[in-house]
Amino acid sequence: MRLLVVGGDAAGMTAASHVRRERPDVEVVVVERGPYTSYSMCGIPYYVAGSVATPEELVAKPPEAFRAMGMTVHLRTEATAVDAAARTVRVRNLAAGTQRDEPYDELLLATGAHPEPQPLTGIAEYGHVVHTLDEGEHLRRHFDAATDVTKVVVVGAGYIGIEIAEALVARGLDTVVVDRSPQVMKSLDRDMAAIVERILRDFGVGVHLGETLTEIRGTEGCCQQVVTDRGTYPADAVVVALGGRPNLMVARSAGCAVGSSGGVVVDPHMRTTVPHVWAAGDCVESTDLVAGLRRNVQLGTHANKQGKIAGLNLVAAFDGANPVAAFPGVVGTAVTKVCNWEIARVGLLESDAVEAGIDMATVRFEGSARAGYMPDAGKVFVKMAAERGTGRVLGCQLVGTGNVAKRIDVAATWCQLGVTVQDAQLLDLSYAPPFGGVWDLLQVGARKLVRTLGLHPAL
Amino acid sequence: MRLLVVGGDAAGMTAASHVRRERPDVEVVVVERGPYTSYSMCGIPYYVAGSVATPEELVAKPPEAFRAMGMTVHLRTEATAVDAAARTVRVRNLAAGTQRDEPYDELLLATGAHPEPQPLTGIAEYGHVVHTLDEGEHLRRHFDAATDVTKVVVVGAGYIGIEIAEALVARGLDTVVVDRSPQVMKSLDRDMAAIVERILRDFGVGVHLGETLTEIRGTEGCCQQVVTDRGTYPADAVVVALGGRPNLMVARSAGCAVGSSGGVVVDPHMRTTVPHVWAAGDCVESTDLVAGLRRNVQLGTHANKQGKIAGLNLVAAFDGANPVAAFPGVVGTAVTKVCNWEIARVGLLESDAVEAGIDMATVRFEGSARAGYMPDAGKVFVKMAAERGTGRVLGCQLVGTGNVAKRIDVAATWCQLGVTVQDAQLLDLSYAPPFGGVWDLLQVGARKLVRTLGLHPAL
Repeated sequence: MRLLVVGGDAAGMTAASHVRRERPDVEVVVVERGPYTSYSMCGIPYYVAGSVATPEELVAKPPEAFRAMGMTVHLRTEATAVDAAARTVRVRNLAAGTQRDEPYDELLLATGAHPEPQPLTGIAEYGHVVHTLDEGEHLRRHFDAATDVTKVVVVGAGYIGIEIAEALVARGLDTVVVDRSPQVMKSLDRDMAAIVERILRDFGVGVHLGETLTEIRGTEGCCQQVVTDRGTYPADAVVVALGGRPNLMVARSAGCAVGSSGGVVVDPHMRTTVPHVWAAGDCVESTDLVAGLRRNVQLGTHANKQGKIAGLNLVAAFDGANPVAAFPGVVGTAVTKVCNWEIARVGLLESDAVEAGIDMATVRFEGSARAGYMPDAGKVFVKMAAERGTGRVLGCQLVGTGNVAKRIDVAATWCQLGVTVQDAQLLDLSYAPPFGGVWDLLQVGARKLVRTLGLHPAL
Repeated sequence: MRLLVVGGDAAGMTAASHVRRERPDVEVVVVERGPYTSYSMCGIPYYVAGSVATPEELVAKPPEAFRAMGMTVHLRTEATAVDAAARTVRVRNLAAGTQRDEPYDELLLATGAHPEPQPLTGIAEYGHVVHTLDEGEHLRRHFDAATDVTKVVVVGAGYIGIEIAEALVARGLDTVVVDRSPQVMKSLDRDMAAIVERILRDFGVGVHLGETLTEIRGTEGCCQQVVTDRGTYPADAVVVALGGRPNLMVARSAGCAVGSSGGVVVDPHMRTTVPHVWAAGDCVESTDLVAGLRRNVQLGTHANKQGKIAGLNLVAAFDGANPVAAFPGVVGTAVTKVCNWEIARVGLLESDAVEAGIDMATVRFEGSARAGYMPDAGKVFVKMAAERGTGRVLGCQLVGTGNVAKRIDVAATWCQLGVTVQDAQLLDLSYAPPFGGVWDLLQVGARKLVRTLGLHPAL
């Protein structure tokens, strides 16, 4: 029996490793387009910044380690098409340019996501995309080598874009971020994103929103200008940090259904709509447990969990048994750190609630990261949301100078378990002066929402 | 109608304020033994350390502010006895030495807790108790004035004792902590407490455990030596930081039942066993929702919540209505910061599980406060516990250099809501390299417990 895995990062290698360990009789073969396996995509900005020295440090487990476990790993090998009837995958050796068919009994698609190529003049020539580790490596080598680079334009003001921008400012570069959206971080509501925008400006990042990139100009291989619909910016280098889209080529050729979210449709057991074809990680869509919709969420946490679920169920499939594990879904938890501010979010944006037809109330307020009388108490901006009528917690957004990031996991637990603000305000949460006030900020939010929604008891 | 409140800190003033606001026709009278109202007891070590400049900064709301709201506040006034039939409380003006009876329609006992006086030679003369703000003020004044103090012995290695010890070392004093218990912080299991003990020693605090104080010796009003059953320590000052016991004198004289936990028995509405007598805060016992036992837990978070619940129900009582709000109970959440380490706990100790007859399994491991490849990743020691059979999360203890404290609130939510390790491991918790690994440490713990307990799915 043979498992073929397409994609050698978190989801794919987690599943492959599990099957390898549990079923030594199953042949496990992985094809990966890039030169690395199992690396931390979230670590790339820190590598570009220089706080992580080598790309190898971001690699959780190199190909040799997987090979030593007894699996076959083909790097720089791209899967291009599936023949689901014949159960074969056409693969291409990118170095040699040769093609061949790899057979499978079960096939796992863990093809991830990647920004779509932009059909703009100069972008292919001068734009540095940073999505994969080898792209990050290429960018860092460029900055390390090019002593004449002083002005950089980052295209895209999402997580990666602003993390990269911070890294570049920290390297002493004159950095401008351009995004066609009217706000940074579309994962936040506009009012909370405005706080992050201010933080970036205060740190020295130029932020140009509502501008669409139209062209990158250069001469003799050297980038010179970035042109948008509203201006022209001098640029010695351009970093393209646009949101990734699921890599669907292989899934589509297998005949797998793709959802309106843009991700491969899977059931909770990570099965696609095509027999013997499974999918996991950034390329699939998941159930948003708060909105009750399907979403494509690209995060290492989900990729690892889904990879493990797929691995467990693949072992069951090789045993001729039914699936044994299910992925419950997501609530949109995410955190990042920018310029010493921690930014965290979970659940629905105001626009999500409208889309999902959920009647949502929000409160927004400013609190302190420590007890008010402590030195350097620091600010925390809080926004919380709950459903009218029921009081169910629907979301939370935090921007603060400390004790913020991991606090979002409390709200994430509330969102995932359907906890109400009435109950949340009375939970036994921690308190000590270095970490906040006697009413935790999330409970301050819950209390405000109880009042706003006219619920009881109003503490 | 008249509400009499005994005790002017968190629980008492929260209830008094609520009644004052909601029922302007009710006369609200507060008697408080000390000179302050509504202050942060947890802030006292920071005031002693000098990082908080004045005692007033720890006062959330001074007596004048409550008086301006229209209530009567008698400071330095001690309640000594209750005549529940006549509905009067005997009070004594501590300055004048005079006594009088204060009548009530409803009486709230928020008398707090205080370390019991120790019947040892020299302790009354040389020991500085630090439980109330005026005691803290007295201690700080002593250290600020006494330039000849270089050696200090702290009696008691609980939260307050070690926070004070850290503060004293930071002030440049030679500091020794003595406790008769074989470990520091009895709120932790012994293995986790051993880690804290090492942190204290590394910071320069002398730690002497399993030693019982027998005498404090001095001459001409100057402290000289602390004598224990195992040694003699030079001491220019002695700080007594022993655990508080509920102040029961008034409750007992009213005829209120006292539980085996040592706290006043109350129902979820904060009613004692005596009609028209209510109690809240450090003096009452609460339901431990994990163990299913009653416990006396002295923390500002509970005092504030219980004070609010009492206030809501007192208003209902003045309206002739039934209680409208209930305090659900506690799960033993607590955090502190010692020498830049964050220490957090929730739920059952191993000994608690034995006492409650709960079949508990634990796992213990070491993780990283940030992604392993980040600079200064820092250590986090984790211990987690779950119930055999069901997998219900029973507790968690964390000692780490960062991103620890507020993370305990995630485990607290799990404990309070009865979440199992099987479900916990699949929650959508946050991840970014500055805050941890791709599997949150609490989920690493949950996964280990799933395996230990033979549950499914074993991710």
